[in-house]
Amino acid sequence: MSDILLQERQAGIARLTLNDPKTRNSLSEAMMAELVVALDDLRRDDTARVIVIAAEGPAFCSGHNLKEITAHRQDDDRGAAYFTKLMAQCATLMQGIVHHPLPVIAEIQAVASAAGCQLVASCDLAIAAEPVRFATPGVNIGLFCSTPMVALSRNVTAKHAMEMLLTGDLIDAEDARRIGLINRIVPSQFLRQSVDELAAKIASKSKAVTKIGKEAFYRQREMTLPDAYDYAARVMVENLLIRDAEEGIGAFVDKRPPEWQDR
Amino acid sequence: MSDILLQERQAGIARLTLNDPKTRNSLSEAMMAELVVALDDLRRDDTARVIVIAAEGPAFCSGHNLKEITAHRQDDDRGAAYFTKLMAQCATLMQGIVHHPLPVIAEIQAVASAAGCQLVASCDLAIAAEPVRFATPGVNIGLFCSTPMVALSRNVTAKHAMEMLLTGDLIDAEDARRIGLINRIVPSQFLRQSVDELAAKIASKSKAVTKIGKEAFYRQREMTLPDAYDYAARVMVENLLIRDAEEGIGAFVDKRPPEWQDR
Amino acid sequence: MSDILLQERQAGIARLTLNDPKTRNSLSEAMMAELVVALDDLRRDDTARVIVIAAEGPAFCSGHNLKEITAHRQDDDRGAAYFTKLMAQCATLMQGIVHHPLPVIAEIQAVASAAGCQLVASCDLAIAAEPVRFATPGVNIGLFCSTPMVALSRNVTAKHAMEMLLTGDLIDAEDARRIGLINRIVPSQFLRQSVDELAAKIASKSKAVTKIGKEAFYRQREMTLPDAYDYAARVMVENLLIRDAEEGIGAFVDKRPPEWQDR
Repeated sequence: MSDILLQERQAGIARLTLNDPKTRNSLSEAMMAELVVALDDLRRDDTARVIVIAAEGPAFCSGHNLKEITAHRQDDDRGAAYFTKLMAQCATLMQGIVHHPLPVIAEIQAVASAAGCQLVASCDLAIAAEPVRFATPGVNIGLFCSTPMVALSRNVTAKHAMEMLLTGDLIDAEDARRIGLINRIVPSQFLRQSVDELAAKIASKSKAVTKIGKEAFYRQREMTLPDAYDYAARVMVENLLIRDAEEGIGAFVDKRPPEWQDR
Repeated sequence: MSDILLQERQAGIARLTLNDPKTRNSLSEAMMAELVVALDDLRRDDTARVIVIAAEGPAFCSGHNLKEITAHRQDDDRGAAYFTKLMAQCATLMQGIVHHPLPVIAEIQAVASAAGCQLVASCDLAIAAEPVRFATPGVNIGLFCSTPMVALSRNVTAKHAMEMLLTGDLIDAEDARRIGLINRIVPSQFLRQSVDELAAKIASKSKAVTKIGKEAFYRQREMTLPDAYDYAARVMVENLLIRDAEEGIGAFVDKRPPEWQDR
Repeated sequence: MSDILLQERQAGIARLTLNDPKTRNSLSEAMMAELVVALDDLRRDDTARVIVIAAEGPAFCSGHNLKEITAHRQDDDRGAAYFTKLMAQCATLMQGIVHHPLPVIAEIQAVASAAGCQLVASCDLAIAAEPVRFATPGVNIGLFCSTPMVALSRNVTAKHAMEMLLTGDLIDAEDARRIGLINRIVPSQFLRQSVDELAAKIASKSKAVTKIGKEAFYRQREMTLPDAYDYAARVMVENLLIRDAEEGIGAFVDKRPPEWQDR
């Protein structure tokens, strides 16, 4: 197992913990590679039902590793090829979360900035512990947070996103919740417990069904209303015909707990 | 007149009241058929200016009728044809509200869940009475709320929608207002009065003008910015040339109340 | 210099002040023409780094000039050609703000209504002074705010926008902030100071970088997620290769203040 990305499994909850505190859990090449592989493995893992992305140390995630970036300025092409590869890797990671068949929860402490804020925005759900801060501060170092804003602007409204992007300022947990970047704020000592409760609740659902629903959510939201309804109606019919819908609806009508086939 | 869908008319306000308390106002085939016909009739009704969708009983609307769904599992095709027809009927109903020429206000009490929550999200405006609850709990019975999320995700931001969809949890009125699912919360004893005041205010506008505006709202929001401006500019010119704009602007300049032609 | 649009420059902040109080700063033909020219000039102004749109008098901006509109009803075509030209001019102005290379901040006092509310919604950021009010009241005069809603509905969620559009009611600063129409509320006596501080903060960033970021923001938000990531990744690579990114990241790694090339 890697040192910089810890992995745990418990009762269907797969916990990936960023563990590179000396770089403030930067999304170094190595860290992104580990995350991509870990997420990919979880696609084929029958026991995993929900994913938590957490972190150890003084930052949840500080975004790209600036030392790696700076080192490649010595390349013959001043880094162009490296930067292209790096951005493709980052986009693959973030879209791998959005399109992952399992729900992904961000468990955030300390600070999430730049691509670290993008990581939060890319997860389906996010719980943060007070005190926590969020920022897209690239503008302060001459590198606008253009890829983070792809995720950010699909979570929060335009003026809120632009304020973070143009000022680079840190916002606190309450503002992050108000604008829609995170779902819940908890006291620091209850962070893990709160995330585990949320994860356990989601893990108790039919895995086949959360997979159907998560995939449909991100697909339908990019369609026109008539297309979205045509698509979602087909999804509902397919869902109705799987065994877990028959069991779930039958159990509800009979007032008994359902027994999912995929457990 | 139907027993399960009550209809009233008063001063331009058409009130449709779901009245099937024994099924918690489920969107049974019969209820959806009644709603589609009632909404269609109101397209051709010269006296109606605004629509209210309200409900009697212990739930505003509990979504699809699970007993009907379960009964069709005995069909030769395990219900596939029936489910397809049912989802098409539901999509027709919901889009019939969005594309209705009259503004539609939801008057919500008790609980709106699954397709009942979709009904709220599909209305132009929504007022709810404390205590009220909202949920998209399909995930609890093995049937992800995929069609409700089409409407929900066009009302609230991504993380809020995903929390409702993945947990199935009930949210209260304050959260529903905070995330944008409803416009206002009122004490239960003032619900009807508050909705009537809002409906009367909208009914006092030119019907031709609210029709132009509502149609344009839902069309332009699916366009790119340049296309939306091209389209909306044409809509404005057409609006400026109708008699009610000439009268309304003239009355405003002359500081007198307007007299709409279409009243 | 024009009387109806005042222009100041100080330390990179270009301030455009609507100054036609007797028409409540209406967006008359003359005012829109002045704004379009002033914004266009600022595209080619090397010293300007951020734009503030402010106003003098009892209203921030009251929208279109209804007397001009009414006068053209005497035209042979009842105004059709004039209205078409007017709406095109307004769309050009509003899109000129969205697509301007410099960030634009609205400094709002008193009331912003109709196309005046659209002006606020079209700016990247907005600070308002208590007491302030916002409305899209066209429905009250027979002219639905169809072009204002293009901007409004790209700032706030559906039910909030529809409530403003269908009722025409004024909303206060707190509601405007809650729904995302403005970023901040300040006491009236601190309005200018707060805007200047925000403008100065943005002016302290690399102008090349805020330009890259602002353009990318509005482009990527209209794309699908994969397209947005492909595009934003290319933007990031281009940004990484400009001199201000090398300087900014280098300065950050070296813990010294950056010196932007474009200052």
